[in-house]
Amino acid sequence: MSLSVAVAGASGYAGGEVLRILASHPEFTVTTVTAHANAGQPLASVQPHLRSLAHLTLVDTTAENLAGHDVVFLALPHGKSGEITEQLGGGALVIDCGADHRLTDARDWAAFYGGEYHGAWAYGLPELVHAGGGAQRELLAGATRIAVPGCNVTAITLGLAPAIRAGLAFAQDIVAVLAVGPSGAGKTLKTEYLASEILGSASAYAVGGTHRHVPEIRQNLAVAGGGDVSVSFTPMLVPMSRGILATSTAPLAPGATLVSVRDAYEDAYGDEPFVHLLPQGQFPRVADTIGANTALIGVAIDEAAGRLVTITAIDNLVKGTAGAAIQSANIALGLPETLGLSVNGVAP
Amino acid sequence: MSLSVAVAGASGYAGGEVLRILASHPEFTVTTVTAHANAGQPLASVQPHLRSLAHLTLVDTTAENLAGHDVVFLALPHGKSGEITEQLGGGALVIDCGADHRLTDARDWAAFYGGEYHGAWAYGLPELVHAGGGAQRELLAGATRIAVPGCNVTAITLGLAPAIRAGLAFAQDIVAVLAVGPSGAGKTLKTEYLASEILGSASAYAVGGTHRHVPEIRQNLAVAGGGDVSVSFTPMLVPMSRGILATSTAPLAPGATLVSVRDAYEDAYGDEPFVHLLPQGQFPRVADTIGANTALIGVAIDEAAGRLVTITAIDNLVKGTAGAAIQSANIALGLPETLGLSVNGVAP
Amino acid sequence: MSLSVAVAGASGYAGGEVLRILASHPEFTVTTVTAHANAGQPLASVQPHLRSLAHLTLVDTTAENLAGHDVVFLALPHGKSGEITEQLGGGALVIDCGADHRLTDARDWAAFYGGEYHGAWAYGLPELVHAGGGAQRELLAGATRIAVPGCNVTAITLGLAPAIRAGLAFAQDIVAVLAVGPSGAGKTLKTEYLASEILGSASAYAVGGTHRHVPEIRQNLAVAGGGDVSVSFTPMLVPMSRGILATSTAPLAPGATLVSVRDAYEDAYGDEPFVHLLPQGQFPRVADTIGANTALIGVAIDEAAGRLVTITAIDNLVKGTAGAAIQSANIALGLPETLGLSVNGVAP
Amino acid sequence: MSLSVAVAGASGYAGGEVLRILASHPEFTVTTVTAHANAGQPLASVQPHLRSLAHLTLVDTTAENLAGHDVVFLALPHGKSGEITEQLGGGALVIDCGADHRLTDARDWAAFYGGEYHGAWAYGLPELVHAGGGAQRELLAGATRIAVPGCNVTAITLGLAPAIRAGLAFAQDIVAVLAVGPSGAGKTLKTEYLASEILGSASAYAVGGTHRHVPEIRQNLAVAGGGDVSVSFTPMLVPMSRGILATSTAPLAPGATLVSVRDAYEDAYGDEPFVHLLPQGQFPRVADTIGANTALIGVAIDEAAGRLVTITAIDNLVKGTAGAAIQSANIALGLPETLGLSVNGVAP
Repeated sequence: MSLSVAVAGASGYAGGEVLRILASHPEFTVTTVTAHANAGQPLASVQPHLRSLAHLTLVDTTAENLAGHDVVFLALPHGKSGEITEQLGGGALVIDCGADHRLTDARDWAAFYGGEYHGAWAYGLPELVHAGGGAQRELLAGATRIAVPGCNVTAITLGLAPAIRAGLAFAQDIVAVLAVGPSGAGKTLKTEYLASEILGSASAYAVGGTHRHVPEIRQNLAVAGGGDVSVSFTPMLVPMSRGILATSTAPLAPGATLVSVRDAYEDAYGDEPFVHLLPQGQFPRVADTIGANTALIGVAIDEAAGRLVTITAIDNLVKGTAGAAIQSANIALGLPETLGLSVNGVAP
Repeated sequence: MSLSVAVAGASGYAGGEVLRILASHPEFTVTTVTAHANAGQPLASVQPHLRSLAHLTLVDTTAENLAGHDVVFLALPHGKSGEITEQLGGGALVIDCGADHRLTDARDWAAFYGGEYHGAWAYGLPELVHAGGGAQRELLAGATRIAVPGCNVTAITLGLAPAIRAGLAFAQDIVAVLAVGPSGAGKTLKTEYLASEILGSASAYAVGGTHRHVPEIRQNLAVAGGGDVSVSFTPMLVPMSRGILATSTAPLAPGATLVSVRDAYEDAYGDEPFVHLLPQGQFPRVADTIGANTALIGVAIDEAAGRLVTITAIDNLVKGTAGAAIQSANIALGLPETLGLSVNGVAP
Repeated sequence: MSLSVAVAGASGYAGGEVLRILASHPEFTVTTVTAHANAGQPLASVQPHLRSLAHLTLVDTTAENLAGHDVVFLALPHGKSGEITEQLGGGALVIDCGADHRLTDARDWAAFYGGEYHGAWAYGLPELVHAGGGAQRELLAGATRIAVPGCNVTAITLGLAPAIRAGLAFAQDIVAVLAVGPSGAGKTLKTEYLASEILGSASAYAVGGTHRHVPEIRQNLAVAGGGDVSVSFTPMLVPMSRGILATSTAPLAPGATLVSVRDAYEDAYGDEPFVHLLPQGQFPRVADTIGANTALIGVAIDEAAGRLVTITAIDNLVKGTAGAAIQSANIALGLPETLGLSVNGVAP
Repeated sequence: MSLSVAVAGASGYAGGEVLRILASHPEFTVTTVTAHANAGQPLASVQPHLRSLAHLTLVDTTAENLAGHDVVFLALPHGKSGEITEQLGGGALVIDCGADHRLTDARDWAAFYGGEYHGAWAYGLPELVHAGGGAQRELLAGATRIAVPGCNVTAITLGLAPAIRAGLAFAQDIVAVLAVGPSGAGKTLKTEYLASEILGSASAYAVGGTHRHVPEIRQNLAVAGGGDVSVSFTPMLVPMSRGILATSTAPLAPGATLVSVRDAYEDAYGDEPFVHLLPQGQFPRVADTIGANTALIGVAIDEAAGRLVTITAIDNLVKGTAGAAIQSANIALGLPETLGLSVNGVAP
């Protein structure tokens, strides 16, 4: 079997990473790559690292060009995927790496994004534990429309959901602060993303609860059993091209211990191929996840502060975007979940 | 007037930065530089950036070599300054950049450092607001023994103290997460501080409330009126040589608004030469503080999360260490507080 | 078929990269990993990014532990592999990533390394063009002992050999200057390799012709037809963990044109899976080769200066070390040359 | 005395650095800052690190706004300063940080820049040694129009001129390769200058002799006695915001030794406040020059290759631009040459 694949938004960082993983996936063959401003150019001119796909040429991002494939990956600015998917026929599996189909509540969409609301799709975070037992994976089998989570959301959700499901930490008054690399912002040409601005520096953005990932975090932790979630989320931009290191803290429930917390994470992730709890006293490095579909998690109890503190490392472009997309596609299509995905990071 | 100065620990990063600032200070003349393993070498061999001090040679860190100066700066590992200051006579102003004389409670020392407790000195954070009004500066005038704060402590304290003093935020359940550069760890030869390990990566350490700066943060925020402070503090090591970006959050008091919070910070820092509240909606970058004795602060209210979120940027080696030392020395000696200190960062 | 593999020096960067590639190689199974100081520890404690090999435990680097495998990869300090291979029996394919078996002239060994000379093995740079036609690949088929080239050597050799073989540039008065990342120095604990020293900086080393890679460059370019080669080689250490960007220049032969030069490189590399000449006017970025066994080359003619200027990018740990090792092993064993090796870089 | 100063192009990196140095210069008072797109904004909004100049507001870059000052610094794109200086009256000292007035030969201007040629001004590299003895400094005293050298040019010129003047190396077949930071490109919004593109990577540009600094290098080395100079110059962009590390090589003249070469550099720079020859066997780091007006030089003889190899480190924004501008202004105005300029770098 080889499935034909189209990738929309193939000139950006997310689209490029989808292509990098697809290039070595044994069951997918990329036949169409689309872009907006770069349409007409060889793919190699904007993605010179994708040597094995150098024969491809970018075409316009239109429903016509995306039609007729077995699988379509969308890596488009928010608002754009919603538009174009309405024009796509029903035959293909469509995976949206953007935000348009993540939120289940139209009011959240209106409050944080605005514009037309396109409705929620099956949510592509297979390891998200559900309050009632089981995990999100079950909802992805056979799905034909999948929304890939936001990268920061994935790091925070994976880092806290097991403790919340187990009743060992509360989802009220969560505080999460992340060190993130600039590739999450894509190729946006703004002064603040210039190398001269970011090298040797760090800065925070969307401070005070305005980041668009906030409702999605709340949504996930509610799925895990968090009730009426509240979260203070602050991303700090730091000088590494890829990666997220999330420090996620939540108030400890009475009686929670390091043993019971570790048990809850082992219970949630012990059989997961891509989400790993580190041994006691160990905390992850971003470098260990680069290029890999891996999330690494370390947990600690701060007794004096009354908080659970978890550290989660992911590659924002892989487990945070493209890897999650392909993992979800594997599940939806009944392929082995790990097919074409690496668990080993490129370090140092 | 020119005061003779000795710097102990002159081969390290903190000692080097003390020297860099002293080199252009109009009232101080560095006559003695001491080290341990590097004693006997020219200063230029270990601090090749200090061109104007290239005539100096490192001598052993002994009480004899430090005696007979008007001012002595200590940049030694903890435990060492306590030892040596007991042997120093009373005539000189002694400024300790290390931890030995920061903590006022011997139990905190025992719990977080251990070994002999040497007692607290005047605490060198001039801008720390006191619950009863006034600021720490007043306790530094005429002091002869001064303890320079920990770098992370400075960032968090400056970022939260005004709101706590004003009763606009609570000091219980503070959560502070910092992006920090590796120079804070000095020249320690460990694999984890190698460039290959830190480039392209980020990692957390002292997770779960074990960092030695925790009791000092509590101590300061109690001085600001915080009562029985609790703080969850997590530093994340990121690939910038210098700098700290602190995201400090605290539960909002009922009725606190952005206007009242900004008023509290203006009240605390409006006349400060080195601590600046940024305009509404703006948040600082580490780069803007590099080489400068400046702390830049941005504040936000997260209504949904019920938290005050402040972002503070400092250069860990300047306002976080050497600049604070010299600012405090200026105050103690009755010199203009800003003498020899730059407010402008070296950016980009 | 699955061949059993031992990796010596598995705790270092080179050994780790050999393991990372082997982990996804369909014909090799790593059964033994050895180290010196870290023997007895789980591999995961020193190579936490190698999740799929986390079941392995490091054992001592001894001939006994390395015996009985189909393939042995050595990633040891120079001098060490020479010692241990004398004790290994004849059955296995042995690939040495170190320097011990690269140089064909004992006088070069004595001048640049010293200590016992262990003799040259088949040289693992398959794409090295030979003066008389053909390439180095032919000498690797069926080999049982292979020496992997030095990383800087690979970049310079690939960048200049075709022009020299074609008589379009002279190998006398070559000047090559490289930007290199610190991972080439391994985990050596020296102050100069600390992140604080390397972030925001650049420095040269082995200036003036003392670098150990010099005789190996001369040796290769002589093989390509360069006669009595002379080369000025300077590496500059820059703040990227991996990668080499080589600017290699050579005096132009009379009549050489950009067309004739490009023809020579197309002739040499047109069919190579891992060495790619970029289109006219394009020059490579290191990022495009990270994690890949790819060398990217751009060429230019500087008429006014009378020099050929070529830019070569490689990942020092892959095409510069571990990838070359596995590519050579594939050839030696009669496997497809590209098996288990990626041509696509991990960018950005 | 306090001289009134206007800075044109104050929103860019070069203009910002001129302002940073002027802010602590005892004889200059910045009264006017001009910009193009940012006119009307507070200076603090585009240069948030310049806290002591936060009271200034950017006005349009027009001859009217620049008139009436004692000193005018221009940090404008090439072509722009030539235009505007024709409209400025004769009273002020004008220092151009751009390229418009550097080249003495109109044919070089036509070949490398194009557009109207505005003629050469006094060249602001005080330490450039002249073939006939003396240095460029002498031509700057009393000058009213000064052109600041290109940053790469400064590094290469300082690194080779003494050997060429002394006849110890030839200026024919010079090869210079530089590691440079992206701040040299200013705030240009191009994908290639995004942090995601530059972090973890390195790339070359203007390969093959097309860089605009080439004729200026030739011009300087001819002044030093180089005759008909030829130079192969390649800049490599690396992930540090500031700084240049230049590896400059030239063919050795017969009989040249390390002793005679070191003598020539001592002779040229022994009394220079800002250009320092390092001790034998030592080579500079970029970090040691950051924020300082210092050029550090190490020299080596490569006997086997027949080349002199020199390594020069500067901060491209200071000794490479703004520091050179202010040093030259000091000389022109009869002030102490070192006034307001630091010799000590901000390291680590």
